Amino acid sequence: MTGLTRTLPPPVFDAAFRDGLETLLRWRRDVRRFRTEPIAPATVDRLLDLADLAPSVGNSQPWRFVAVGSAAARAAVRANFTEANADALGAQPEERRHLYASLKLAGLDRAPVQLAVFTDTGTDQGHGLGRRTMPQTLEHSTVMAVHTLWLAARAFGVGLGWVSILDPDRLCRDLAVPGAWSFTAYLCLGYPEEEHVEPELERAGWQARTGRGRDLIRR
Amino acid sequence: MTGLTRTLPPPVFDAAFRDGLETLLRWRRDVRRFRTEPIAPATVDRLLDLADLAPSVGNSQPWRFVAVGSAAARAAVRANFTEANADALGAQPEERRHLYASLKLAGLDRAPVQLAVFTDTGTDQGHGLGRRTMPQTLEHSTVMAVHTLWLAARAFGVGLGWVSILDPDRLCRDLAVPGAWSFTAYLCLGYPEEEHVEPELERAGWQARTGRGRDLIRR
Repeated sequence: MTGLTRTLPPPVFDAAFRDGLETLLRWRRDVRRFRTEPIAPATVDRLLDLADLAPSVGNSQPWRFVAVGSAAARAAVRANFTEANADALGAQPEERRHLYASLKLAGLDRAPVQLAVFTDTGTDQGHGLGRRTMPQTLEHSTVMAVHTLWLAARAFGVGLGWVSILDPDRLCRDLAVPGAWSFTAYLCLGYPEEEHVEPELERAGWQARTGRGRDLIRR
Repeated sequence: MTGLTRTLPPPVFDAAFRDGLETLLRWRRDVRRFRTEPIAPATVDRLLDLADLAPSVGNSQPWRFVAVGSAAARAAVRANFTEANADALGAQPEERRHLYASLKLAGLDRAPVQLAVFTDTGTDQGHGLGRRTMPQTLEHSTVMAVHTLWLAARAFGVGLGWVSILDPDRLCRDLAVPGAWSFTAYLCLGYPEEEHVEPELERAGWQARTGRGRDLIRR
């Protein structure tokens, strides 16, 4: 491996690439409205391979992906979301309830590819390094794999939406995953119906992004 | 804002950009060996602005950055790390203790820019959307901001190392941050001494990355 290190020259990222990266970050969206055309399986494989390049604590790579495709599994996830979302609606203050009810918060109805993402809390990989005082760094590693997948998908023209309005325990039971796997994220993927530079929640009047604005605290 | 949506054509990411993105993902490293030359403040600002484009649950943008620069604050962080790392060394099984002791696990000694990153668990932004059943999505949003900063830094030639071998409560006390802020990550930034395509933990013989290899589970 040392030989490989010596023979590969480190890359230089130029201004054009950095501009492209900024455009990618600006146009990444949480997509909930999908066209129904499929994503080629080779594209999905490619995106998962890229997600595997994410950082992980101690090189633990604890992310586990489950492709949710059967009618039964998808129905279970939709029922889970419907119940959790009704509960969330009920918990809204009166003045925001109507707006909440109008939001489209998931693409479960049409997204051609759906992935449930778990963190293997029982993995030996990494030998526990870096997570003794902060065990949550294992799940944080999975979150960075999800984010890597998200950015890679966008670069391939594929939209991704992260659904978190779900009961995690029920999802683990419904998908019958190993007991040591903790549920991290449910992802809908597909080609987006529309492309926007503003987040859907901003366009719907729920929550605009705020500029950084905040002064950096110094210590 | 609707006008803006209509007037900006969505970007097209071509094969050259996608190749560059893959190179960025492959060459991103957790850097612990830094040159001492400073990073221009304008570059740090630019990286923090890009981090602000990260996804966040309900558009909550809960990430808070503290620049740790004073001798006293840096000494407190180093002492925190030294103690947590000695504790982690003691907990290693006999046969890995020597190897663990030989690892360089943080760039706290030389990194010119150091950022403590917190999650504001008390933020109203986002009105709680998406985090009723999974409150950890707030901290996950901060993790994606850290990851965005990491990738952006690498594109600017800046290395980043994430230090998690720290007592979080002690760090919050030492840096005197608001009570609702939860500690998420401590980041060292600077120009790297060397560039490698393989992770340092792999080169040191601690833990190699494994290929995806695992079959995708289907449900």
